[in-house]
Amino acid sequence: MNYSIVLYILGFILKFEGAFLLLPALVGLIYRENEGFAYIIIAAVCFLTGFILNLKKPASRSLYTREGFVTVAFSWIVMSIFGALPFVISGDIPSYIDALFETISGFTTTGSSILTDVEVLSHAGLFWRSFTHWVGGMGVFVFIMAILPLMGGSTMNLMKAESPGPSVSKLVPRVKDTAKILYGIYIAITFCELFLLCIFGMPLFDALTTSFGTVGTGGFGIKNSSIAGYSPAIQNIVTVFMILSGVNYSVYFCLLSKRVKEAFKLEEVRWYFLIILICAGMIILNTRSLYPSLEETARHAFFQVGSIITTTGFATTDFDLWPSLSKTILVTLMFIGACAGSTGGGIKVSRVVILFKTIRKELSLVIHPREVRKIRMDSHVVEHDTLRSVNVFLAIYFVLMIVSTLLISVDELDFTSNFTAVVSAINNIGPGLELVGPTCNFSVFSAFSKFVLMFDMLAGRLELFPMMILLMPNTWKKR
Amino acid sequence: MNYSIVLYILGFILKFEGAFLLLPALVGLIYRENEGFAYIIIAAVCFLTGFILNLKKPASRSLYTREGFVTVAFSWIVMSIFGALPFVISGDIPSYIDALFETISGFTTTGSSILTDVEVLSHAGLFWRSFTHWVGGMGVFVFIMAILPLMGGSTMNLMKAESPGPSVSKLVPRVKDTAKILYGIYIAITFCELFLLCIFGMPLFDALTTSFGTVGTGGFGIKNSSIAGYSPAIQNIVTVFMILSGVNYSVYFCLLSKRVKEAFKLEEVRWYFLIILICAGMIILNTRSLYPSLEETARHAFFQVGSIITTTGFATTDFDLWPSLSKTILVTLMFIGACAGSTGGGIKVSRVVILFKTIRKELSLVIHPREVRKIRMDSHVVEHDTLRSVNVFLAIYFVLMIVSTLLISVDELDFTSNFTAVVSAINNIGPGLELVGPTCNFSVFSAFSKFVLMFDMLAGRLELFPMMILLMPNTWKKR
Repeated sequence: MNYSIVLYILGFILKFEGAFLLLPALVGLIYRENEGFAYIIIAAVCFLTGFILNLKKPASRSLYTREGFVTVAFSWIVMSIFGALPFVISGDIPSYIDALFETISGFTTTGSSILTDVEVLSHAGLFWRSFTHWVGGMGVFVFIMAILPLMGGSTMNLMKAESPGPSVSKLVPRVKDTAKILYGIYIAITFCELFLLCIFGMPLFDALTTSFGTVGTGGFGIKNSSIAGYSPAIQNIVTVFMILSGVNYSVYFCLLSKRVKEAFKLEEVRWYFLIILICAGMIILNTRSLYPSLEETARHAFFQVGSIITTTGFATTDFDLWPSLSKTILVTLMFIGACAGSTGGGIKVSRVVILFKTIRKELSLVIHPREVRKIRMDSHVVEHDTLRSVNVFLAIYFVLMIVSTLLISVDELDFTSNFTAVVSAINNIGPGLELVGPTCNFSVFSAFSKFVLMFDMLAGRLELFPMMILLMPNTWKKR
Repeated sequence: MNYSIVLYILGFILKFEGAFLLLPALVGLIYRENEGFAYIIIAAVCFLTGFILNLKKPASRSLYTREGFVTVAFSWIVMSIFGALPFVISGDIPSYIDALFETISGFTTTGSSILTDVEVLSHAGLFWRSFTHWVGGMGVFVFIMAILPLMGGSTMNLMKAESPGPSVSKLVPRVKDTAKILYGIYIAITFCELFLLCIFGMPLFDALTTSFGTVGTGGFGIKNSSIAGYSPAIQNIVTVFMILSGVNYSVYFCLLSKRVKEAFKLEEVRWYFLIILICAGMIILNTRSLYPSLEETARHAFFQVGSIITTTGFATTDFDLWPSLSKTILVTLMFIGACAGSTGGGIKVSRVVILFKTIRKELSLVIHPREVRKIRMDSHVVEHDTLRSVNVFLAIYFVLMIVSTLLISVDELDFTSNFTAVVSAINNIGPGLELVGPTCNFSVFSAFSKFVLMFDMLAGRLELFPMMILLMPNTWKKR
């Protein structure tokens, strides 16, 4: 293991986090809150630590897959460790473990909270909470790569570890340009939502934090009732932007490059919209009697479906009170998740499509054993390595889910709460059912269970491998 | 599709079922019950239908994988359709759908019941219920092959479809001899248990039905309290025989051929015993305060662990009242299941071991990308085709589980009940948690949900493929 390069990159990350922390400090200044000072202090600590770590240039600049994965995992952990400190110093979240949970939940765009009352937090604290979603949504390495020519050719190994989906597709030949385009689209969508929300009467601060939570597919709200207290128009705007944020970003790139036909041909995106339509339709039929009008039923159905499939986690209604069928549809959507190449989490629509195509192919092989049939996506043959990585992903995914449920059941909560809490954490969603339903929070868990869920959130956001190899003794052996 | 051969084999199956049905008729005669006549009538119907189907010799005797799988699936369905009739005619289970559910639950060795009171059933009915477990446990085709030289070389395709585990291992070169040895061991274990249960004071009828339920890993009891009402000694005997029935039968074959060392070296079997010991140990610690003595705690813990991992489903205590950790351990065991090549269901220990080895290998590949590492079981390299079939099995398994949970949630029961009912059905266990816990039954479900669960039970028993290809339109197309 080339530790010097890992530490060197961690130094970079901390400097960037220092810069990010100045934003909530500014918010604190505007609202004249003392809590803002906590952010200035920790920003200074980040700059200083980053400076020290960057003093020593790494002996070698080579970054193998192993170092890439370890670096990304450590970066997210270190970012969270430092990012949690202002919550404690400002007094917004007195317990450090809770603050760490909240920060990891933020960066991983999960949106699960341990707070019973978010409205008592300072503006600086609320801003930082939501801003972590925005930073984590597109990914911090993508951001760094868009700005700095960090490590030459081997940077792909960092982006590979951080980007969602079964295979990294570079939009343009150069990594740096891809990163720039991605962040460009990301910022544009954020501004569009911000603008629309403000026009429809949402206060600027609410609109800003809500946009961060939507576009990063995070889900932290600044109200205890999430989005339920805002007007129907605002709820619908959030629905649209949640769903748009779950779309593979290459669609937007195609649209920008005026390849409209190509954009609408992407199989994954078509399935994504079809799933949303079918599930929302079924939920409308199933919950029609709960709401006075069809408009309201449809609004809540589309909002919750959009919120869960994109793994955002906002809520306009307590879906834990919905009938069992609707709840099970939502749990199923938790597994599916958004498109690859979006900011959303979960298994990803493309993996699910590949999974179904594999099953169809294998069953066909039983019927016609000598048939040669290849699995295709967007009319390209899916490579054997991609298929294998999808299988391994799913294997690790289910094993991690079962082991985590087992570990947190030590707390003696009911099975549905435990299971959906883990599903929610691994898929970076936010709420689950029962005790972790949309009107409840994760404060019911013990410190041990919180650590298990923190691991799951990070593992889910980084697509399992970077966090899993931290657990392998081989990773720490000398070559 | 070579329909003539499928129908011809179905004829065979029905004749055998007619013979099986004479046993409960005999029991009815001994206890002087009118219900016995129902069994004689249906036995006659089976013989007659079988005779008619066998009148026309099949045009071709070739049996490809497709025909093999379809034949096995149909045989189990037809056996259940006819096997359910005596329950209705005798009045033991007036509703045909319920009777069909009970019969499929019997043949698939699930042991889930729709009866609220089993003790009102006739002796003939109770015997038939338990005897279906025994027939289904080792499999009806294995039985036929042990007796008749059915179809020459292509019979392997039938056995392949019916035998549990990722790969069929022939104990001896000839299929017929393998089948004979398997049934020999099966009968010997049944008699051993019967003998011991009788010695320890269990009435003969109880001992016989309990032995069928144990050795077939079924789980139908003849008392409403399952095994809870019997003495501790009897409970312990059942525990031992449940666990022995979940062992890969090749162990017994090795012991019979005096290859003792080889028997104890089998990796799957070692893991199986290790899992039982660890899980029972954890449950003992977790439930110690619920029972007056350590002996009783250990007895219940080992009984329930043995019952669930072997997918039998007997109970000595209401484990739905256990703490959450113990319940989650049991749910985890439901997924694991027994050894391949045993009469138990579930994913099978060997598949789980291969799954973990695959994960370890793939994570190692991230660390050392150029390393060549093969997955080994019992120090043999696992073939690529076996690995692929394990992956496909797991993919279908989880998709079927999610789709089934979604379908039965239309009944509006709670999530835990729905989810564990499906897990219990696919893995052929019997009880689940909450509304389908060990003291409850499956009568709470609608007819539609019962059909979904029946499909799941058959799919689980036949290792998914035979039932799944029935759903493929391609199966029904002409070549």
